[in-house]
Amino acid sequence: MGLGSVFLSEVLGTGVLLLLGAGVVANVLLAKSKGFDGGWLLINFGWGLGVFAGVYVAYKSGAHLNPAVTVGILTSGAAEYAPGVPVSFGSTIIYFAGEFLGAFLGAVLAWLAYKPHFEETPDHGLKLAVFSTGPAIRSYTWNLVCEIIGTFVLVFVILAFGKTPTQIGPLAAALLVVGIGASLGGPTGYAINPARDLGPRIAHALLPMGYKGAEGEAIGKKDSDWGYSWVPVVGPLIGGALAGVIASLAF
Amino acid sequence: MGLGSVFLSEVLGTGVLLLLGAGVVANVLLAKSKGFDGGWLLINFGWGLGVFAGVYVAYKSGAHLNPAVTVGILTSGAAEYAPGVPVSFGSTIIYFAGEFLGAFLGAVLAWLAYKPHFEETPDHGLKLAVFSTGPAIRSYTWNLVCEIIGTFVLVFVILAFGKTPTQIGPLAAALLVVGIGASLGGPTGYAINPARDLGPRIAHALLPMGYKGAEGEAIGKKDSDWGYSWVPVVGPLIGGALAGVIASLAF
Amino acid sequence: MGLGSVFLSEVLGTGVLLLLGAGVVANVLLAKSKGFDGGWLLINFGWGLGVFAGVYVAYKSGAHLNPAVTVGILTSGAAEYAPGVPVSFGSTIIYFAGEFLGAFLGAVLAWLAYKPHFEETPDHGLKLAVFSTGPAIRSYTWNLVCEIIGTFVLVFVILAFGKTPTQIGPLAAALLVVGIGASLGGPTGYAINPARDLGPRIAHALLPMGYKGAEGEAIGKKDSDWGYSWVPVVGPLIGGALAGVIASLAF
Amino acid sequence: MGLGSVFLSEVLGTGVLLLLGAGVVANVLLAKSKGFDGGWLLINFGWGLGVFAGVYVAYKSGAHLNPAVTVGILTSGAAEYAPGVPVSFGSTIIYFAGEFLGAFLGAVLAWLAYKPHFEETPDHGLKLAVFSTGPAIRSYTWNLVCEIIGTFVLVFVILAFGKTPTQIGPLAAALLVVGIGASLGGPTGYAINPARDLGPRIAHALLPMGYKGAEGEAIGKKDSDWGYSWVPVVGPLIGGALAGVIASLAF
Repeated sequence: MGLGSVFLSEVLGTGVLLLLGAGVVANVLLAKSKGFDGGWLLINFGWGLGVFAGVYVAYKSGAHLNPAVTVGILTSGAAEYAPGVPVSFGSTIIYFAGEFLGAFLGAVLAWLAYKPHFEETPDHGLKLAVFSTGPAIRSYTWNLVCEIIGTFVLVFVILAFGKTPTQIGPLAAALLVVGIGASLGGPTGYAINPARDLGPRIAHALLPMGYKGAEGEAIGKKDSDWGYSWVPVVGPLIGGALAGVIASLAF
Repeated sequence: MGLGSVFLSEVLGTGVLLLLGAGVVANVLLAKSKGFDGGWLLINFGWGLGVFAGVYVAYKSGAHLNPAVTVGILTSGAAEYAPGVPVSFGSTIIYFAGEFLGAFLGAVLAWLAYKPHFEETPDHGLKLAVFSTGPAIRSYTWNLVCEIIGTFVLVFVILAFGKTPTQIGPLAAALLVVGIGASLGGPTGYAINPARDLGPRIAHALLPMGYKGAEGEAIGKKDSDWGYSWVPVVGPLIGGALAGVIASLAF
Repeated sequence: MGLGSVFLSEVLGTGVLLLLGAGVVANVLLAKSKGFDGGWLLINFGWGLGVFAGVYVAYKSGAHLNPAVTVGILTSGAAEYAPGVPVSFGSTIIYFAGEFLGAFLGAVLAWLAYKPHFEETPDHGLKLAVFSTGPAIRSYTWNLVCEIIGTFVLVFVILAFGKTPTQIGPLAAALLVVGIGASLGGPTGYAINPARDLGPRIAHALLPMGYKGAEGEAIGKKDSDWGYSWVPVVGPLIGGALAGVIASLAF
Repeated sequence: MGLGSVFLSEVLGTGVLLLLGAGVVANVLLAKSKGFDGGWLLINFGWGLGVFAGVYVAYKSGAHLNPAVTVGILTSGAAEYAPGVPVSFGSTIIYFAGEFLGAFLGAVLAWLAYKPHFEETPDHGLKLAVFSTGPAIRSYTWNLVCEIIGTFVLVFVILAFGKTPTQIGPLAAALLVVGIGASLGGPTGYAINPARDLGPRIAHALLPMGYKGAEGEAIGKKDSDWGYSWVPVVGPLIGGALAGVIASLAF
């Protein structure tokens, strides 16, 4: 398969993932939304089913949707990223590019879907949370540890999927993400995917976040929290790379 | 297969979908119901599992249950709507008719199941919400955008289902609808299906919605909100048509 | 297969169903339980996954677990209740007996599991609700209508399961029950199964329900509500019989 | 397969199970976590999906992850613990050792992931609950009964899985655990696994649980509740052994 097809496939799949993933956060956090205050399990299902939909859409390219997955396959020593797509420097870059661009575009679509709700929400911190993750307790060391552990589980279990014959396909990845969110999402909001965090953070920086509500001033300043932005990029890359190495030894 | 069988199959399947879909909204919104105030995720599962049940019931006709799906298959350039059912002007009309009639009848059955609860609920707005969707923030432009995006995801991913070999069948459609509801249902209540919205809206207009509670007067006037009714028809048709075109290029 | 094996299989399967089904209600309603006030979706999943476990356990006998399912298979005109078990007067009675006895025993086990919580719960109405269903708004006519509709959906969709090739097995029945509970459980608590309601109601009448709490007197009188008890028996039998007839025409 | 591989496989699988299982409790109970107060169903899904991930990871050794499962297979009279792993005294000890060590290590990883949240949580009882179960109403007799019943259901249904051809694999075990938690977890927090409880309890005794919050003193004394610790070991072993015997007669 040509690398153009891989690129398009990853853009579409990661776009759908972010549209649904950013969408569920918007639904739970933004003013006047029907799912407002819907709870953590709702958020977990939204992201998990975003993976579900994205994996179907990106079936041609093996549906990485995540640079940490790409890196994990690389460090596991596999010969191909997907049937007919050999591991190489060029293909790695193509996966990364498709993942980041798709994540950016999906977040823009989620912003379009919730446009009036952004305008009615005064709190700038809630708006950023639709796009990118942030720590519950800021500690770069421990936030990094948490992202490494969460992404390790993600990539390690995905690499185990291929070893057992089951027939549930993309549902397995979806449920794994629901589980990681439920269990390990508490401290950092489980980026576990550099593209999922950085692509939308760039979208947040570029898009207008105006407040048109009648109940007074906006709260906080528009700020994309670039100081934290490296944690959900570096942590998942380390976790994914580790998972590939250990999977190659254990499985 | 004859078009009479297609019609009956779509009536039955869409009927079960609306019975369970309208039912879960009644359960969460109507007075004294055991699921009262049960949350957004409960609503998402009710609709998703309504799709699950409806898809099994309408297995003969390929279980469109939704004019936006029918239109998406049409614009994708497929030759058949289901095995043995060629795409044609006549078959398209039969699908539409079965979907709308089924949605109407399913909503009537849900109203029967919850009859005493309608009579104990004073608020007319809540009663309408059992039947049809309405916007959280009324803006015809942005409400239309949201319905287009949500239906695009629905039909685009359904068209991807056929490309990957998995064995979970109707569960895939069910989970996709849970996910779209969780993520993109916040602004408009995710009609993502013209029949699901218009059929029950007609039922709402025709059925008695009397209030027999002891706690004072009914709230609001019975009103089927016809001003909004075109949005959840036009938006899903545009989204489904777009999904078919793009799927035919991408997959 | 001998009818003795059928009987044992249905006793075990319906026993597991009621143990988990009555258990989740105890978890949500009884004092000091860790799942106290856990919400309607939790109850729906508890019952659905009780079906899931019970269907695996009763695999030998086709896992009816419910006289309404037995009746629906009968009226659908099928020749066998399970592979090797012909439909006859005798086998029908054996299924019924196993289902009722299993439901009785499963409820007793749930009572044992939650024994200290029964003793700490003053409200007799909550204790009855662990065993048997009751109406949110008492109206024998409309309560009957609701049970007929809910059971019709259950048996009709189960009869459709065999028509489409999917590989999710007992999970399909489980999810169907989650969906019916979410959508149609609001008015009557979805017995949709005569054995599930009557067997445990007899257990409730026989078992001690003493209150040993320190916070004053017990609330209400121990009362198994026999006046309502015919509704969740008759309604499901009608619904199941109707589903069998209509399925034999439609599928 | 060599017993070294069995050992490593069970360590990895049980480690992932406890990482996600202890993680979801930390998410719901510890101060400032994003899933704080997320509800019982969230906890049930976290543990169930921990089983899901752990079963994939331990595919080589048949993924017992639980001494009660190992004992149940033993008392059922099976010849092998997994394809190529004969039942023997030595293999039994290896399974036990891998399960306990994995559970210990998984709990340590969960503690690392939530380190800053342990330091901000004053209540020592909540911290212990992340590691080990405790009774809602302390009564060693009835707590033991509840653990026996819950584990009986777990092992009995797992032994039924092999009898019916379905294709959902590890998902079946996951959903069973969600169901047991929803239905039978109310009185004791459903250890249903000696390793899951004792391994992390040892980790709790060894690890620092310092409180660094600003809102006053820590609440309670660090205490691993050794007085209760035998219940979630003995109860599950009895329940699992019983399940194996009855399954060998019934299936």
